Amino acid sequence: MLENSCCSSDASSSPWLLIFFFSLTDGDGEFEAVPVRSLRCRSCRVCRHNIRAEGTAIIVYRLPWTWQCSKLMMKFIHAGLNLTAFIFAIIAMVAVFDFHNSAKIPNMYSLHSWLGLMAVILYGLQLVLGVGLYLIPVTPVSWRAACMPIHVYSGLFLFTSIIAVALMGITEKLIFGLTNPKYKDSPPEAIFVNVLGLLLVVFGALILWIATRASWKRPSDQIAHSLHTNRGGEDNSKAGPAMSELEDGASCETDGDVRKRNSK
Amino acid sequence: MLENSCCSSDASSSPWLLIFFFSLTDGDGEFEAVPVRSLRCRSCRVCRHNIRAEGTAIIVYRLPWTWQCSKLMMKFIHAGLNLTAFIFAIIAMVAVFDFHNSAKIPNMYSLHSWLGLMAVILYGLQLVLGVGLYLIPVTPVSWRAACMPIHVYSGLFLFTSIIAVALMGITEKLIFGLTNPKYKDSPPEAIFVNVLGLLLVVFGALILWIATRASWKRPSDQIAHSLHTNRGGEDNSKAGPAMSELEDGASCETDGDVRKRNSK
Repeated sequence: MLENSCCSSDASSSPWLLIFFFSLTDGDGEFEAVPVRSLRCRSCRVCRHNIRAEGTAIIVYRLPWTWQCSKLMMKFIHAGLNLTAFIFAIIAMVAVFDFHNSAKIPNMYSLHSWLGLMAVILYGLQLVLGVGLYLIPVTPVSWRAACMPIHVYSGLFLFTSIIAVALMGITEKLIFGLTNPKYKDSPPEAIFVNVLGLLLVVFGALILWIATRASWKRPSDQIAHSLHTNRGGEDNSKAGPAMSELEDGASCETDGDVRKRNSK
Repeated sequence: MLENSCCSSDASSSPWLLIFFFSLTDGDGEFEAVPVRSLRCRSCRVCRHNIRAEGTAIIVYRLPWTWQCSKLMMKFIHAGLNLTAFIFAIIAMVAVFDFHNSAKIPNMYSLHSWLGLMAVILYGLQLVLGVGLYLIPVTPVSWRAACMPIHVYSGLFLFTSIIAVALMGITEKLIFGLTNPKYKDSPPEAIFVNVLGLLLVVFGALILWIATRASWKRPSDQIAHSLHTNRGGEDNSKAGPAMSELEDGASCETDGDVRKRNSK
């Protein structure tokens, strides 16, 4: 698939980078070696699963080895990965509340917790609306096209927010979890976890890069996009840019795809 | 300008929201009322100036009341605002080092400081490359087009990173700055600053939304984009999507603009 004419060198060279970062974020691999006990807690582990599932869901349409699969199947995989990420987020939240209650720590006092709760609520809303709009056959095509820019933007924004929340969580855990020596004394554990935080940012940057490049689109979508834009600028401006460019590939479908599925 | 046919209801209704958030982030206004002493420090104040200048620089091309100005003037304003933001970032860093040294606190131990330093270094690099590519007349047009997707992506990514760094900084400040009552006791100051943190996220979301919508483009760029995409899909895929859609408007210019300026 990498030799497909629609696939540029950008898309063909980057899977190795991607595999590297996915292996780094493997919950049962590298990250389990975190030497700070507080970062080996259930909530932290589940948060890592959440970010990995969400990142995969965003780019799942754009991985070259998925281009041969049908669009409908990829939509179900996208929805399934997002549902998995959402369940992980709920498990992480319950684990945090349990930990706070058992340690007599107040709940929901920090900016980290506020932003985290808001991100989870909005993520659930995104999931429900996404399924309602793009997986229920009776939804009008015009609604799908109209909502696509918001769906794509909010997906990427929520992914970015969850990484920011994770970074704030890492900061809190290191401040409260490291006591002797303290975080400010820069023990090896602190350096190690700081490096993991940097890698998390690199992982997020890579996902966002792939999700916003035309060269990573499924070939069928690239052709559909060319046909779409060749119809004229008016159509393009009505559908919004996200329909063609900013999409995560997750739910974007050509008119043909929609009609084919609706007729099933 | 709001009645321009190229300007959709999206662009015409949002300036009020924008003004609202800009007034909230006014360094000499609302934020100065922050009741936590540690958040009234010089570094925090300068960070707010930095984020405001950077956000303005990103969308300065897209504000309807700037559409009548020449592209070249807007490019200088964009570069000037980014330079201002960079100077604010340097001042904030120097202030933090001064504060740490005077209070005998180690420097550069936290993930917040690591990410902050990296963001400032990359921001400086982005500034130098941006001026070299888009303000020096001898730079070939092909280089400008080739680098535009990276310039735009890295601009938006750095803006997002700086907001994440600011949120981590707020978390640290509240943990270390509030002692009696503590942050976990949720005193009114903590609630107030948490709300400001949420507003910072909303501000960032709004800037990113405006920076990625076709309806907020300058009318001349919208027409240029329509002409560009109507030429065919091949051109479009070569230039990359950011050239037409993901651009911050900062440095995107039509072929005509470039030739006109180079001939001066």
